Parts: sequence; C-alpha cells; structure tokens
Amino acid sequence: MTGKLLFIILDGLGDRPIPELGGKTPLEYAKTPNMDKFAELGVTGIMDVIETGQTPGSDTAHLALFGVDPFQYYTGRGPFEASGVGLTVKEGDIAFRVNFATIDENGIIVDRRAGRIKEGTDEFIEQLNGIEIEGVQFLMKAGTEHRAALVLRGKNLSDKVSANDPKVEGKAPYSFKALEDSESAEKTARVLSEFAKKSHEILSDSSLNKQRIEAGKLAANYLLIRGAGKVPKLPNFEKEYGLQTACVAGGGLYKGVARMLGMEIIEKDGMTGGTDTDVSLKAETAFDLLKTHDFIFLHFKGTDNYGHDGNYNGKVEFIEKVDKELYRFLPEKFKEELVIMISGDHSTPCSFKDHSADPVPLIICSPTCVKDDVKHFGERYAYNGGLGRIKGKHLMKLLLNELHLVEKFGA
Amino acid sequence: MTGKLLFIILDGLGDRPIPELGGKTPLEYAKTPNMDKFAELGVTGIMDVIETGQTPGSDTAHLALFGVDPFQYYTGRGPFEASGVGLTVKEGDIAFRVNFATIDENGIIVDRRAGRIKEGTDEFIEQLNGIEIEGVQFLMKAGTEHRAALVLRGKNLSDKVSANDPKVEGKAPYSFKALEDSESAEKTARVLSEFAKKSHEILSDSSLNKQRIEAGKLAANYLLIRGAGKVPKLPNFEKEYGLQTACVAGGGLYKGVARMLGMEIIEKDGMTGGTDTDVSLKAETAFDLLKTHDFIFLHFKGTDNYGHDGNYNGKVEFIEKVDKELYRFLPEKFKEELVIMISGDHSTPCSFKDHSADPVPLIICSPTCVKDDVKHFGERYAYNGGLGRIKGKHLMKLLLNELHLVEKFGA
Repeated sequence: MTGKLLFIILDGLGDRPIPELGGKTPLEYAKTPNMDKFAELGVTGIMDVIETGQTPGSDTAHLALFGVDPFQYYTGRGPFEASGVGLTVKEGDIAFRVNFATIDENGIIVDRRAGRIKEGTDEFIEQLNGIEIEGVQFLMKAGTEHRAALVLRGKNLSDKVSANDPKVEGKAPYSFKALEDSESAEKTARVLSEFAKKSHEILSDSSLNKQRIEAGKLAANYLLIRGAGKVPKLPNFEKEYGLQTACVAGGGLYKGVARMLGMEIIEKDGMTGGTDTDVSLKAETAFDLLKTHDFIFLHFKGTDNYGHDGNYNGKVEFIEKVDKELYRFLPEKFKEELVIMISGDHSTPCSFKDHSADPVPLIICSPTCVKDDVKHFGERYAYNGGLGRIKGKHLMKLLLNELHLVEKFGA
Repeated sequence: MTGKLLFIILDGLGDRPIPELGGKTPLEYAKTPNMDKFAELGVTGIMDVIETGQTPGSDTAHLALFGVDPFQYYTGRGPFEASGVGLTVKEGDIAFRVNFATIDENGIIVDRRAGRIKEGTDEFIEQLNGIEIEGVQFLMKAGTEHRAALVLRGKNLSDKVSANDPKVEGKAPYSFKALEDSESAEKTARVLSEFAKKSHEILSDSSLNKQRIEAGKLAANYLLIRGAGKVPKLPNFEKEYGLQTACVAGGGLYKGVARMLGMEIIEKDGMTGGTDTDVSLKAETAFDLLKTHDFIFLHFKGTDNYGHDGNYNGKVEFIEKVDKELYRFLPEKFKEELVIMISGDHSTPCSFKDHSADPVPLIICSPTCVKDDVKHFGERYAYNGGLGRIKGKHLMKLLLNELHLVEKFGA
C-alpha cells in the first residue's frame, strides 16, 4: 500500500462545558491550531465508540475502535493487562490484574498497594513464578508500581470466578468464589485460593520484605487478584487489514490490546501512560515509524487522568501539549499520503470524574476527502461535522476507504 | 394510492473534490438548477447505501436501496444479469455471466470479447440452446455486444463453482472447479466443463463463424463463463409495498434487479446503460408512466462510467444533461402529489476510478416534507441536510412515509 494511517487517541478526550472555562469544554478551550487545521482540511463528526448511550471502558472502547466487536470478544480486563506488561498470553489462559498489597497479622488489608511500592516487584515475582497447583501453571509479570499481571494456564479453567480484592482497606481479602455452577469455575476458585495462601507465605518469608520493614516500609505480602478474563482469540490486525502496524503507547492496557491484535509494540523510556509522558518523543516516534509502517496507533493517556481528577486546567494543558507536537503531520510537513484520525476512546467529563456515554468528537483528514465546513476541533464544532454521528465499529473501514482499501461487496 | 414516487438513481454519483474543478466534486461543480430546486423544496442528507464504510457493488447497492438486505439475498451477479437480458430465471437456477470469446487452435484465448462482436450472438445462441447434460438444461440469452447470460436449470446444482475466465488474454481458459466439497458443486463443475467443450465444437463449426473469419473478423468460438449465483427468491415489490411499479433503465443489471423484484421493465430504443443514452427519452418515459404507475425507478448509468474512466468533465456534463430533463417533475409542472428521490447507488470518485465507501448525497422532496436549509445538491451541501446520515435499507420506508403508507408498529 502507499498511503499511511495515523490513528491518534487522546484517552477520555470528550468532556462537558466547564463554567470556569467560560462554558467551554477543555478541548474547545484549549488552543489547538494544529488540530484545528486538520479539522479544516478534513471531515469531522461525533462518534459513539461502542453504542449510543453506552459508557465505554478503555479496553472495550479500543477494541471497538479497531473494528473488533467488544460484545463478542471482550471477556474482562485481565487478558489485556497481562498482554500489556509483556506476558505472552495464549487463547484459553485465564488472566487477572494483581495488586501487591499489605495485610497485617490478623489478615486485615492495611494497604491495597503495599505503600505504593515503586520497585522490587520484579524480584518478588521471581520468587513466586514456577508455582503449579493441580497442574495449573501460575505465571506473573510486574507492571508499574504495585501492579502486576497473573495468568493461569492449564486444563479446565474458567473466568467465572470472583476477585479476592474487597476494594477497600480494613477488611480481610475475600475468598475466591465460583460464579457459576461448573467444575471449571470451582477448580479455578480453589487453585486461586491455594495460590493466594502459598504466595502470602512466600512473600512473608521473603528477605526483601524484611528489608522493607526494616526500612520502615509496608511489606508487599499479599496479592489482590481481580479482573478475571479468559484470553480470547482476537483477529490479527495485519492479516485482517493488510497493514504493517505499530503501537506507540505508555499504558499497559493499550499496549495489551495492541499486542493481542498483532501490532508491534514500541517502547521507549519516557513514553508513559501518565500525564508525565514525553509527548514530543511519542509524536516523533510515530513520525519516524510512518516511514516503515502503514498504521500507527498513537495513544495519550493524560487527558483521561485529568478527567478522572476533575482537573480541567490540567486537561487543557495536556491537550495543548499534544497539539503542539502534531505540526509534523501537517500536509506541508508530511509529504506522503497520510490519513490522520484524531479522537478519544470515550469521554471523561471533569464534572463526572469518570467515563461517560457522551459521544467523542473526531477528525478524519485525508488528502482527497470531502471536507465539511468545520474549522475547529471540539465537541460543539463536531456537531456540525460532515461525518454526522458514526459508531466506533465503522471507523477502521472509513479510514481504509480513504486509501481505497475497502473491498467491494457485490459487483 | 394517490401520490406517486419517482426514484432516480444516477449510478456512481458520489465523488471527491477534483483540483481541476476548483476543489469541487462533479456534482457540486455541475449547474443543476432543477436538482437544486428539489433540494430547496425537500430534505437532503447523506446515505450509506449498504453499511457505513462498506463499498457497494451496483447489484448489492440496488437491492439495499429497494429495501432488500443484500447480506441475506445476494448470491452473485449472474442471476441479475440473466434476468436483465430477459431470461426468466426461477428460484434455484444457477445463473452466470458469459462472454463470447476467441481461442486459437492451441486453446489460448486470443480475445476475451471476440473482437467486441457487435451482432450475431443471437444466432449463435439459437444454435446453442437446447443443450442438455446429465438432465441439466442450458439456457442462454444474448446481452449487449459480446455479452450473454447462461442459466443452468436442473436438480442438485450449486453456485459454488469457479469461473473458466482467466480475465486475461494469452492463457487457456481455466477448468471449472467445485469450490466446496459437495456432490452438487462437483456435478455443476462437471456439466459446465462438458458444456464449454460442446459449445466450443458447435461454435467452431458454425457457418456464422466461417463468415466472420472470411470477413477478417475474430471467430466467436468460445464461452467464458463467470459470476455464478443461485437465483434467490426476492420479495415482490408490488406485493411488499402495494405499488404499481415500472423500471426505466438501460443497463442489464438494473433491469435484472428490477425484474426480479417484480417491476415492469420498460424498454425503448435509445434508452441504454451507457453515456450515450437518450436522457430526454428516459425522463419523458418516466413522466408518462407516472400517469399509470405508482413507483418509477429511473436509472442513469453514465455518471458511473465517467467515474470509472476518471473523466470528471464527462461526469459534470452528464449530470447537467440529466438535470435539464428534470424540470418536468417540478411542482409547477407535475400537478399530482409526487415524492421525488434523487441519489446514487454508490460513489465512484474520479480519483479512485472505482467504487468507494463514501456516502452518497440524496434528496427526498415531497409536497409536505419538513424542509431543511440546504438549497443545493452536492456532497458538501448534503452534510448539512436534515436527513443526517441514513442507511440505504431505510430509504424505501422513508419514501413511503412521505405518502403516509408506513404501517404503524404498535397501537
């Protein structure tokens, strides 16, 4: 193929009017000359990422945006988190999200994040890996800070099991329970209970924890396990669309989704899934990748974080920071045929401090598209966009259509 | 019923901005005072004929526009082509598209169109009709120039067979192959092979071909057969909607779709499926038919042909030619209640020289509709239309609704 596709997601981009911003949304308020230029040269609209009125999660949203039906393929967040931290998951594995936590001698959770432990979880996991219970292998890998992923591999396993994480401190961890009346769910709950017990013993005995206690830190002596999901067989993005793909993202979840779809994951120091990410490095990396790849998924998480915090000023600044780096993709700078898509995976209104079902504004800009009259990027401008109101599941085909890559149905 | 419906399709109407037309599309550039008037008096919008992001074929597109789900009913182009040339097809028949071609004494295809043979295929077909192999009847009818249709009628037949047409010259025809492991597919491939052999013998011996050779022309001595489709049972348009219907079209495919839906096919010299069609005669014919019929499907193919050729000037001129003839349907000229719909079956951007998944602009104009503010017909204008972005499958109901003919669901 000749043309290139740049797929930019600002996580949780969509928002609602903020009185302190003069009734504008953060995106409307932000100075975004580059995004505005793409809006002017392209066609805009609003998008229900999963379904009209349906609040998306970040995982389900990204599946939908990549043309993969989350109602068919989504089994839980675990598989994507596990894949995101680099665990090679296989179809049928049961994957979980894990927190290193602290429990006291009475078995009560003192800290769900073991004092937001920053380092050493790799070493703890080395001591834990290799555990096998009833023929089930337990594989772990550390994520950022207190986070880790756990995969159960073996026969007759189920993701219909409850979590042991009560989500609050001052309680004992819950028992794992089968959520359906099946032998596989019973077995999974049983081996998980045994694993929680065994891992607690190993962690409690670990010299690393003794050092932590001596240093006045909380021991990382317990695993809180949640988000069970059976690893689904996802379509391969490259085979499906014939595109050489790469993912530039910091957050584990996004890298996980991308990896499970067969994208190449690009990792560099400074490219994080936080507000501190090196925005310039990400944009530059995407720019360079477009020389060798057809499709770049470029993800920024900061907008969502600020939305969850209700920090509209932070959101405005982060949007402006991203916008500043997009100059390199303007037609006068990027000489090849480029289709650029800019949107969010969902809205995270600062007033909700949470995801909402509000549609997200989007831009599709290609050299030959039928432009609309919209000249700015923002929720209210997008209401007047030529795309109208589309669904996330149609996005990939609309982008491929810009490069004349959609197969004809019929003759 | 009282009101009348005029359903006008300019094939492949939708397009993209053309730099040489000042960045306008052919439809935007063309002077179309009559279409603009209908836009002003009516409501406009954009339409995904099959599905958002799905590039339509002309056959699947027309099914969708007539409210027939192509994903359910479409089996291939053969049945519509066969029906279009006037073969009466029955449910279960296997229909094909055929080229009269020339092969040399080594069995190599010299010309896939037998020197674009203009006449005489009727006589050849007379010599071929009546062939029966393993109880299967072979029915043929000539189309335009080198084209013909073939129908296999008999028990235990399948459309899961490959074509013998290699689509290039300098090769021998392919063998027919069963495309699935079934007795019916095997049988169909076997009788087709025998038919290709037998027809080659008959054509080679034909005195008509000897005359062609003497006149320095290529012999029409071989049949290239493709586009297998099992004839589906389509809904009957008249029964479905209670409308007395007629089709004014030149192209075989369109007449075929219309005939299979039970429409009356109107044929007149000069009404072709090309750029040379008598546009005025077609419009006048439709005008007259509205006196006796409720629903007229009026089809123009030229826009699509020019799109495939990348000839934007030709496309502009053809659109203007059609527009000029539409004056007779303006409210001041057409005194009865008339719902007029003007659109395309898909886009054929001159820059693609092929169909695309771009939505098509449309107008629905009725005496009582809720108008929008759009006063011109064109892709960009239609972005602002009151219909928003609709799907082809909803079009018929929207039109019937203008005449208050949609039954209530519920009480």
